[in-house]
Amino acid sequence: MRVSLQDWAVEALDRMDEQARDYVAEPAMDGRTLADNEAAFARRRVRPHVLAGDADPDTSRTVLGRNWVHPVFVAPTARHGLLHADGEVATARGARRADATMTVSTSSSRPLGDVASAAGPWWFQLYLPREHRHREPLVAAAVEAGAEALVLTADLATRGRREAALRRGRTGFPTAAAAVNLAALTGLEVDQVDEVGHVGPVGPDDVAWLAGYGLPVVVKGILRGDDARRAVDAGAAAVQVSNHGGRQLDGAIASLDALEDVVAAVGAEVPVLLDGGIRRGVDVLVALALGATAVGVGRPVLWGLAVDGADGVAAVLDLLVDELDHVMRLAGVPDLSGIGRDLVVP
Amino acid sequence: MRVSLQDWAVEALDRMDEQARDYVAEPAMDGRTLADNEAAFARRRVRPHVLAGDADPDTSRTVLGRNWVHPVFVAPTARHGLLHADGEVATARGARRADATMTVSTSSSRPLGDVASAAGPWWFQLYLPREHRHREPLVAAAVEAGAEALVLTADLATRGRREAALRRGRTGFPTAAAAVNLAALTGLEVDQVDEVGHVGPVGPDDVAWLAGYGLPVVVKGILRGDDARRAVDAGAAAVQVSNHGGRQLDGAIASLDALEDVVAAVGAEVPVLLDGGIRRGVDVLVALALGATAVGVGRPVLWGLAVDGADGVAAVLDLLVDELDHVMRLAGVPDLSGIGRDLVVP
Amino acid sequence: MRVSLQDWAVEALDRMDEQARDYVAEPAMDGRTLADNEAAFARRRVRPHVLAGDADPDTSRTVLGRNWVHPVFVAPTARHGLLHADGEVATARGARRADATMTVSTSSSRPLGDVASAAGPWWFQLYLPREHRHREPLVAAAVEAGAEALVLTADLATRGRREAALRRGRTGFPTAAAAVNLAALTGLEVDQVDEVGHVGPVGPDDVAWLAGYGLPVVVKGILRGDDARRAVDAGAAAVQVSNHGGRQLDGAIASLDALEDVVAAVGAEVPVLLDGGIRRGVDVLVALALGATAVGVGRPVLWGLAVDGADGVAAVLDLLVDELDHVMRLAGVPDLSGIGRDLVVP
Amino acid sequence: MRVSLQDWAVEALDRMDEQARDYVAEPAMDGRTLADNEAAFARRRVRPHVLAGDADPDTSRTVLGRNWVHPVFVAPTARHGLLHADGEVATARGARRADATMTVSTSSSRPLGDVASAAGPWWFQLYLPREHRHREPLVAAAVEAGAEALVLTADLATRGRREAALRRGRTGFPTAAAAVNLAALTGLEVDQVDEVGHVGPVGPDDVAWLAGYGLPVVVKGILRGDDARRAVDAGAAAVQVSNHGGRQLDGAIASLDALEDVVAAVGAEVPVLLDGGIRRGVDVLVALALGATAVGVGRPVLWGLAVDGADGVAAVLDLLVDELDHVMRLAGVPDLSGIGRDLVVP
Repeated sequence: MRVSLQDWAVEALDRMDEQARDYVAEPAMDGRTLADNEAAFARRRVRPHVLAGDADPDTSRTVLGRNWVHPVFVAPTARHGLLHADGEVATARGARRADATMTVSTSSSRPLGDVASAAGPWWFQLYLPREHRHREPLVAAAVEAGAEALVLTADLATRGRREAALRRGRTGFPTAAAAVNLAALTGLEVDQVDEVGHVGPVGPDDVAWLAGYGLPVVVKGILRGDDARRAVDAGAAAVQVSNHGGRQLDGAIASLDALEDVVAAVGAEVPVLLDGGIRRGVDVLVALALGATAVGVGRPVLWGLAVDGADGVAAVLDLLVDELDHVMRLAGVPDLSGIGRDLVVP
Repeated sequence: MRVSLQDWAVEALDRMDEQARDYVAEPAMDGRTLADNEAAFARRRVRPHVLAGDADPDTSRTVLGRNWVHPVFVAPTARHGLLHADGEVATARGARRADATMTVSTSSSRPLGDVASAAGPWWFQLYLPREHRHREPLVAAAVEAGAEALVLTADLATRGRREAALRRGRTGFPTAAAAVNLAALTGLEVDQVDEVGHVGPVGPDDVAWLAGYGLPVVVKGILRGDDARRAVDAGAAAVQVSNHGGRQLDGAIASLDALEDVVAAVGAEVPVLLDGGIRRGVDVLVALALGATAVGVGRPVLWGLAVDGADGVAAVLDLLVDELDHVMRLAGVPDLSGIGRDLVVP
Repeated sequence: MRVSLQDWAVEALDRMDEQARDYVAEPAMDGRTLADNEAAFARRRVRPHVLAGDADPDTSRTVLGRNWVHPVFVAPTARHGLLHADGEVATARGARRADATMTVSTSSSRPLGDVASAAGPWWFQLYLPREHRHREPLVAAAVEAGAEALVLTADLATRGRREAALRRGRTGFPTAAAAVNLAALTGLEVDQVDEVGHVGPVGPDDVAWLAGYGLPVVVKGILRGDDARRAVDAGAAAVQVSNHGGRQLDGAIASLDALEDVVAAVGAEVPVLLDGGIRRGVDVLVALALGATAVGVGRPVLWGLAVDGADGVAAVLDLLVDELDHVMRLAGVPDLSGIGRDLVVP
Repeated sequence: MRVSLQDWAVEALDRMDEQARDYVAEPAMDGRTLADNEAAFARRRVRPHVLAGDADPDTSRTVLGRNWVHPVFVAPTARHGLLHADGEVATARGARRADATMTVSTSSSRPLGDVASAAGPWWFQLYLPREHRHREPLVAAAVEAGAEALVLTADLATRGRREAALRRGRTGFPTAAAAVNLAALTGLEVDQVDEVGHVGPVGPDDVAWLAGYGLPVVVKGILRGDDARRAVDAGAAAVQVSNHGGRQLDGAIASLDALEDVVAAVGAEVPVLLDGGIRRGVDVLVALALGATAVGVGRPVLWGLAVDGADGVAAVLDLLVDELDHVMRLAGVPDLSGIGRDLVVP
């Protein structure tokens, strides 16, 4: 019986083939940052309230103009075809059932239109193609398909080094996990986009350009207050504190440890999202107490997908939200605005 | 030969069946808080006095108007029928022999009258039934049976998740461990009370209402100074710093780490009790040095009960008190008032 | 080949029988303090000097009026007959060869006269017998035999609990390790002194009384500045920071961590000795940098004794002093007065 | 496939014979300092920039008047003949290919002239022979052969104790690893120089004397700001923060932890080099952020040499520089001057 995300992880990793396991589980280099993402939560301690009323917790919050039932969303991850025959379509279905906004990756292994049809509210994660002529159609397609926000990944100036794959000499992906979406929209061959199509630095001008599409722009991969400031000044409607799940700069600060600096810089103006290391409802509580508006989950969604497709995705998300409801009751907080800084030991 | 509580633990866990072991040993979720309860003591270091006189240590203290021979009491735990045929009756006998006040749980698996007859001084731990019509008879019975204080558990807004039991798909308890006391007093069926009868938040009004019975009310499950303040303002005669043995909110602060904040808030006005992680006489000394008036032990009492019934309970408590006497001699403190803050490294 | 004290430890523990091993190695209770004694040194880091001249290090220092070749002395340990047929006589011979002052224990398993004859300069460690009529002859004999100082053990208000021995149900010692010295001097039977003869608290009056014999009195077992102050005010000529090798109050602060408080209190007036956890020359350097005048070693001497009698004792002490000379060269300090506080990272 | 320095280490240690492995891998004594050298980097966390432009990182920096392509140089290590038939000649070839300045050791197992011919820019590391008549020819030969700087090792007042070798009773080195360079230049026999020729303290006068040769003098082995100050006052053109790879004073502060004190003292005036624990590009980044001008690598070069001679040396250095370029991209810094203190969490 699966009663924790860890149970899902164990079963999922057991079912995956080697390439999928490497892709889902592997951090960059020594994994210092991935381990620290989780450890940063485990180090924190909560000071729960008692004698605090008996309301059923209200987990809802308005994020970028839409009312969310709960503050958990699906962080962008790529190539779901490695894990399930229906790929991102299954993920989108599961997220919708769990009332979770899904971030659809540029590197989706299913066409954007198919994913959008299956999804509830969704955001589009954008890797900015190097060549400008490829950018327009990509973003236009996302807007056309109904994305409610554009999530610009800012921390992929170059691809992180996941050394297990390098050691195995593996390059490319199987057909089922091809970045068909990006290929279709850019007119590139699938194996071109894999290697050269969409990795490179982004700058404030790119944020400003993207904001011109009229959708809220979320800049993802922020780990410093000063960068958050620059993102917002360039037109970002939100920032996402993230180290790319420990897959990019190994040695980077844990997401949770970077949060308060970013909140201090821009938290009064825009939502501050966070991903990285969320494995328990209490982790959601801690992130919100330190100032996050909402939290994204990446690997846990993939565990659900690998084990049981859309049902698994929904189950994983439901479990996490249920744990949040559970810990809110135990911490005596009636709603998300009641989750203040002093709920966590300094 | 059993020379430490740990020896009792090993033997007890070895004798128990799986369900009993799960019930006694298991923390909520990942066990972060349970481990931290014990680690918080192991991290502390004592600065013992020498050249300090040769009086035999006086471990006595007045608590809620009664003179105690020592500052160790039996924290509330439930369903002793899982561990011994005589259940709470045996526990009460053992506690009496060891001069320890026993807290009898609402979820006693033996009728309150039987337990009270076997006990020395005892307190009644109260889970507040959801329905008000069930509350009166429960409290009235405890008062009638001679409880000297009412211990209101404040940290069971919902039941903590002990995942080993969930994973095994286990629900309910064997007949020997049924909450017969609660059932009898509320008129509910035994299997109703198990699941729905007595879990929910309590508020300041409940404290005030309970104080109306004329007995001192101890609010248990406090981990913050501001909550302690509110409990006392509502009429509590004492507070008990506790995280429910790590069985409720996993990630909650260790009891010992929460103590000083509570003592600063209300320690000058009411006794501050503490449970969670006490395994050695030196742990008692440390808790008292940081401001606790007295300390409760839960699991160790159950180990004694499982190994040797009332004799085991008495032996475990005697051992702990004997260790306290021992470390007081070695620390050069003549009585409990001599155990000051500066005895422990900051 | 034995190139470190650890090599001696391994070989010694391998040669000992169970009782000897328990006696030498075992800490009180959980061994928190014993482990911390060593860890406190391992945590410290040295900031060595270079460009500091090429003098051969001078390790000498005057301690209580006598010039020592080096600052390492033999801390008191008892019942050497458990480890070698010649007992303390062998230890004394080895210490003399290594130019180390030996502290002879009240619980010597060889007559004081025999040990004194074999020793170079030596101090007498005193457990104060409960009955005053036993004290006089004990101290008088030590003075008569030529002790140069009297080391009053202050931390044996009661005997620490070494649980391995308790678990084995062992009581008493074999004849070879009997406290013949104490028995002879007090007129008690050997098995009486083992259990009741010499355990109990000591007070400032005892220090003053002892100082009346005209020899310098070292109060051993001090872990706080205020106690050091009281010892000196009562007439102590030196204090010895010690937690009895972790054999008394488990949970007590590590010797090294207690040192600076004691030095701040009395270091300007009297020598501050330290024992507990010294296993390397760099440990000696660190203790001296934090204000110790000299350091005692207990277990390492017993390792040497068990492996090779007097030769082993001398070899162990020589090794440690040689390591001190070695690290003084590497740290660029010409003599002990050059070992200042800033040599160790705060 | 070797994708990290650790991969090279594993393969290299597997290929070496026991003596080579001991020589390359072994720290002094307990290895506290060696472990801490690496741990000091692993403890640090980076706060990378995003939205930071898309320039290819410029890793160049001017060091002691020469423009370096990157800030990684070969720290001095001795007796490369233990690892490869071509010894230091192979190392020099590899370093040249990787555009890395090589520090050639006094204890080179190949004649200086041969090494110099194979090298690109190189520095000469000097162990100061005890007898002054041996110093002149040694330095003169280095100047003559084209050394661009003289690196005076200041932390070999005596030889560190590497206990594995002592335990094995090993003395001396095989012919292939003999210090032929030193022997040739001093006229000593090879087995004389091994043991007595070149170990001893150095002082400010030695720095001043050496500076008289007109080449920049780097004083290596500095771990304190005050010593750095004295070195510079005596004429040093640079200092090298180092604890000799944990091979000298075990217990000495980690190189990285000593860096900031040295930078504060002399960083505004002279380059501050650092070696010890560099195993990843991110480690280089961290060292530079804390104020290092450039970093030396010792063991990793030997791993490369042992596995694949000059090619291996070049590959290891290229890998490290490539990782530096990689992390600079991910951290959003365009050049070395952009690597500021605030890139690393305090």
